[in-house]
Amino acid sequence: MNDLSAPLVEPRESLDSADAMERRLRWIGATRYHSLHPFHRMLHGGQLTRGQVQAWALNRYCYQSIIPIKDAVVMSRFRDRMIRLEWRHRIEDHDGFFDSEGGIERWLKLTDGLGLDRAYVESLAGALPATRFATEAYVHFVREKSPLEAIASSLTELFAPNLHEERIAGMLKHYDFIHPGIMTYFQRRLDQAPRDAQFALAYVRDHATTPEARQAVCDALIFKTNVLWVQLDALHHAYVNGNVPPGAFRPDGM
Amino acid sequence: MNDLSAPLVEPRESLDSADAMERRLRWIGATRYHSLHPFHRMLHGGQLTRGQVQAWALNRYCYQSIIPIKDAVVMSRFRDRMIRLEWRHRIEDHDGFFDSEGGIERWLKLTDGLGLDRAYVESLAGALPATRFATEAYVHFVREKSPLEAIASSLTELFAPNLHEERIAGMLKHYDFIHPGIMTYFQRRLDQAPRDAQFALAYVRDHATTPEARQAVCDALIFKTNVLWVQLDALHHAYVNGNVPPGAFRPDGM
Repeated sequence: MNDLSAPLVEPRESLDSADAMERRLRWIGATRYHSLHPFHRMLHGGQLTRGQVQAWALNRYCYQSIIPIKDAVVMSRFRDRMIRLEWRHRIEDHDGFFDSEGGIERWLKLTDGLGLDRAYVESLAGALPATRFATEAYVHFVREKSPLEAIASSLTELFAPNLHEERIAGMLKHYDFIHPGIMTYFQRRLDQAPRDAQFALAYVRDHATTPEARQAVCDALIFKTNVLWVQLDALHHAYVNGNVPPGAFRPDGM
Repeated sequence: MNDLSAPLVEPRESLDSADAMERRLRWIGATRYHSLHPFHRMLHGGQLTRGQVQAWALNRYCYQSIIPIKDAVVMSRFRDRMIRLEWRHRIEDHDGFFDSEGGIERWLKLTDGLGLDRAYVESLAGALPATRFATEAYVHFVREKSPLEAIASSLTELFAPNLHEERIAGMLKHYDFIHPGIMTYFQRRLDQAPRDAQFALAYVRDHATTPEARQAVCDALIFKTNVLWVQLDALHHAYVNGNVPPGAFRPDGM
């Protein structure tokens, strides 16, 4: 486990090969991915109330709902049809098809199962402003940065499967209001995330051909870990430490 | 003093006149402006360490430095030369002239005076990611929303002078590392903010001519109060409660 109280010391290895870059990317994941955040330890360890889990699911919906929008912007950056085809299946994973559900629908099963009103969740009216700003920053990033950086910002999925396995096991074990039927989102991502991550990793390894481009890839991943970390900091401050900002969701009794 | 632990109950008055809208705007200020945030009470009451004041000034620089960029985007939304002329002086206030300083330079006098390295401050490298996301959300807002909403989002300046007076008096009284020479930013804003706020208020009173447009004006002000509030929540979580996120500024001994 990483010592979060210590400042980060960037490794000194220069980014003169794809392998060196991949080592740096994995170091960034090991020191900055939100699996390290105290809020996740509380979530998976059964230390949260139902109201706090509601707040997490409600805010995380804000992130889920923006992913296909972000991916549509990424697609729009490429003239290469093969990349658009590869990227399109991410949108299919989240939006589903007319006759079958996708990840967003599966997330709403979770918020339904937690007793949240679906229209309220979908309106984003109760989401923390910090969640809104962080998730919208992700869309702006993939629109404004280079196509290489847009793809690199998805690389947090390299680290997602372990987190999701821990989450499924921990939440099912510790909370009587959680059952497998409302956890299908994470179950599905165990298969989807590795495919996506491998494509993105192979892409940046092939297309970042200078130390400067490799640094930009690493910075894009750092940006994305910040997008995720900010969301948990905001949840922690509001719902663990009890500082709910004006207008945001308040669980019963808070 | 507003009770922050209570949910907000929106007033029932409908927005069928400019006066009703102005009452609502002032209510939004009274319930959501960041003068109510606990971090400001600590800052002005002398309850912060020098390191915590450094963290505040460093992060707030991120906001200061984006204001003329935001104002340039606002200017770019108007074909009416008179509005551009009026708005241009905001940029002059912040950027100054070749032969005289502006608000950003005055802010750097504050960070200099607090012992922060100027290049480090200007790089934004140590700013909290939440600060980055919130301030960039402000630029995106004025680019993507209507020109009316872009102007309305500046209306927090209606409430700034009281806060600045309280800040100047409180900080000079309580901190031996603060002296008048590094507080000139706030002194100048006492004259500048009211002029700006009166123009913006008159503009939205004249141009929001339907209840829907008046609601959009109010929502723009709420958005802006969120931009400010998020910054203080993030400071509080990181530097009062001691949860500095990976990569952010760490004062000596933290």
